[in-house]
Amino acid sequence: MKIINLDHISSKPLIPEVKKAMIDAINQDYANPSSQHKKGEEAAEALEKARESIAGLIHAENAKEIVFTSGGTESVNQAIKGAAWANAEKGKHIVTTNIEHNAVIRSLRRLKSQGFKITSVSVDSKGRVNPKEVAEAITDETILVSVMHSNNETGTIEPIQEIAEITKPKKIIFHTDAVDSVGIVPMDVQKLGVDLLSFASNTFYGPTGVGGLYVRRGTMIWPLFDGGVQEGNKRAGTENLLGIIGMGVAADHAKKNMDLRLQHLLKLKNKLVSDLPNYIDEYIINTPMEYSLPNVVSLSVKYVEGESVMLMMDDENIAISTRSACATGSLRASHVLMSIGLDHADAQGTLVICYGVDNTEEDIATFLKALKNSVKTLRDISPLYTKTH
Amino acid sequence: MKIINLDHISSKPLIPEVKKAMIDAINQDYANPSSQHKKGEEAAEALEKARESIAGLIHAENAKEIVFTSGGTESVNQAIKGAAWANAEKGKHIVTTNIEHNAVIRSLRRLKSQGFKITSVSVDSKGRVNPKEVAEAITDETILVSVMHSNNETGTIEPIQEIAEITKPKKIIFHTDAVDSVGIVPMDVQKLGVDLLSFASNTFYGPTGVGGLYVRRGTMIWPLFDGGVQEGNKRAGTENLLGIIGMGVAADHAKKNMDLRLQHLLKLKNKLVSDLPNYIDEYIINTPMEYSLPNVVSLSVKYVEGESVMLMMDDENIAISTRSACATGSLRASHVLMSIGLDHADAQGTLVICYGVDNTEEDIATFLKALKNSVKTLRDISPLYTKTH
Repeated sequence: MKIINLDHISSKPLIPEVKKAMIDAINQDYANPSSQHKKGEEAAEALEKARESIAGLIHAENAKEIVFTSGGTESVNQAIKGAAWANAEKGKHIVTTNIEHNAVIRSLRRLKSQGFKITSVSVDSKGRVNPKEVAEAITDETILVSVMHSNNETGTIEPIQEIAEITKPKKIIFHTDAVDSVGIVPMDVQKLGVDLLSFASNTFYGPTGVGGLYVRRGTMIWPLFDGGVQEGNKRAGTENLLGIIGMGVAADHAKKNMDLRLQHLLKLKNKLVSDLPNYIDEYIINTPMEYSLPNVVSLSVKYVEGESVMLMMDDENIAISTRSACATGSLRASHVLMSIGLDHADAQGTLVICYGVDNTEEDIATFLKALKNSVKTLRDISPLYTKTH
Repeated sequence: MKIINLDHISSKPLIPEVKKAMIDAINQDYANPSSQHKKGEEAAEALEKARESIAGLIHAENAKEIVFTSGGTESVNQAIKGAAWANAEKGKHIVTTNIEHNAVIRSLRRLKSQGFKITSVSVDSKGRVNPKEVAEAITDETILVSVMHSNNETGTIEPIQEIAEITKPKKIIFHTDAVDSVGIVPMDVQKLGVDLLSFASNTFYGPTGVGGLYVRRGTMIWPLFDGGVQEGNKRAGTENLLGIIGMGVAADHAKKNMDLRLQHLLKLKNKLVSDLPNYIDEYIINTPMEYSLPNVVSLSVKYVEGESVMLMMDDENIAISTRSACATGSLRASHVLMSIGLDHADAQGTLVICYGVDNTEEDIATFLKALKNSVKTLRDISPLYTKTH
């Protein structure tokens, strides 16, 4: 059964090179990288090779600034809680935005219950935070600013570099959740000026359940996992070596093919957005074309439920999403869409179309045809639509 | 290059069935288990199948009591910190032993810095904790007891069931770090009576970087990772599905082959211990034969450095360990060995021989011959040995 995967925001397929590397690693019988015998050294070499690949992808000065984690969520929790706990004596105030991923929001809520104060800066109708407002939110007690690099529902890219210029002279730790950006758009932690940056392997076609945190040398954070001395004492526990090897190869390919992939994704994005009026009317595109990821289009279709469209698409073997997979099961409207000013009905009619290197213009055309049919069917049975049209 | 792996305590090879399952999973192109379309449901089914396998291995009443983690260290941190934070209002006292793994020790040290009080009960010369001493250590403020199921350096199995009989009527949460036991010896959380039990996949020939926590229904713990709603809201983050699938298959085989494996491991243990006097003299076996894991022998050889023996063995393509791989790089003597009363010199002369289903009696014989040679060589150049002999 061939499925057209336009739900890359939830899960991207492994590229063949990653599959091959992981299968080779499985057959390699690696030992524990912390073991001091020959087999251990061989494993340690594979681990450090992957670390170099990640450092290359994000332009870290030193591979030792990369800490491997079990994915984006651990990375975000590690960054935020680790920075807050380690620096609580300097102050207990944290600045963030109101469109962050739940991993950020809920980590901060946890810290709030421990006495930290959180200021959440709002975004404009395009989902962009104004660096001036971040500056205004900072107090003498502020120890951490956490602003996402790109939003996982709308694809909006935030002005990270401008915010770093505010935090740096004040010596406030700056974390960016770049889980949906790293490996998709060029990333340079030196230029960005961030202290902590979270990423996840699956974003760039590596395995799920693997990711990492960039920790600029000198940034004080407490580990989330205490125990062994792995990862430069920043993250205890025997590593998921197979996953890390897969992520390393994925990083190499993301770096090497960045330009080609960008071209391909932008071609699909342009086709989707420019062809859309030929198929449906009365919709809103929530993704600001001028500053957004090349691989995401957030689309609110009036007078339909996104979930219903998703299920009808599923019957046509097209996978799409209505929101972050991490929020599956929640009945509440997306906080991201409410924050950019959508009303409740439009938020509920939202589809997140996220495509990848494995998709073609034909996939977009097939999606558009199926979208037209499902929207027509759903509107025909919508009392609100039939009453007003 | 054929390596005889007697360092199973650091890393066990994947059994062929696990390799096959993981390679199949890589080629299956699983989606995100939280996605609501067909591909997502297929992934969710694979995830829940693995959860059932784990529940079967440890006799959990309900598979929902299993939370997947990135390994033993996360599981231990989650259990201890999660239970402490969630129950701090009831009291801030925790009881443990002085031979726990660093993941336990350092998690507790972290909690101490947050105002918790820790009482560490000592063990006898065989490494066993006396349940009476645990009972005496408990106060009205005690909210958590954490005692390991088996020790990772000596293999000593602790009287967990007897301790549970003490904690249960007092409604104190009881956690056991069973990372080195689950899948090696029969495990029944109902009989044991524990509330929280940590395990790791690699112990039973699954991949590294995967594990889990058994959380008895009704046990209050805070998540270590806040974010998405995965794992019944107990552990946010997209799952390491490939690793979890591997762990599930490993669990099925561990359960099915438990008796056969036990017989094989005990045969190797008996051979090692009974043949040893024919090869070397002046040594101590730290593993109590009457209550210990079948796959570990801790051996302190007088007048030698364990590290030197390990390196000489490595030249002969035999992998052994001197201590927990998680403590690699530490120059201090093992706290476990000091706790059972070894002097510093004997602790430094300790080897941990840990074998598995892939080892043979011939491997043990090869090891013993190599041990004889290296011990002779090292003693010949030891001033202390030559002066006293």
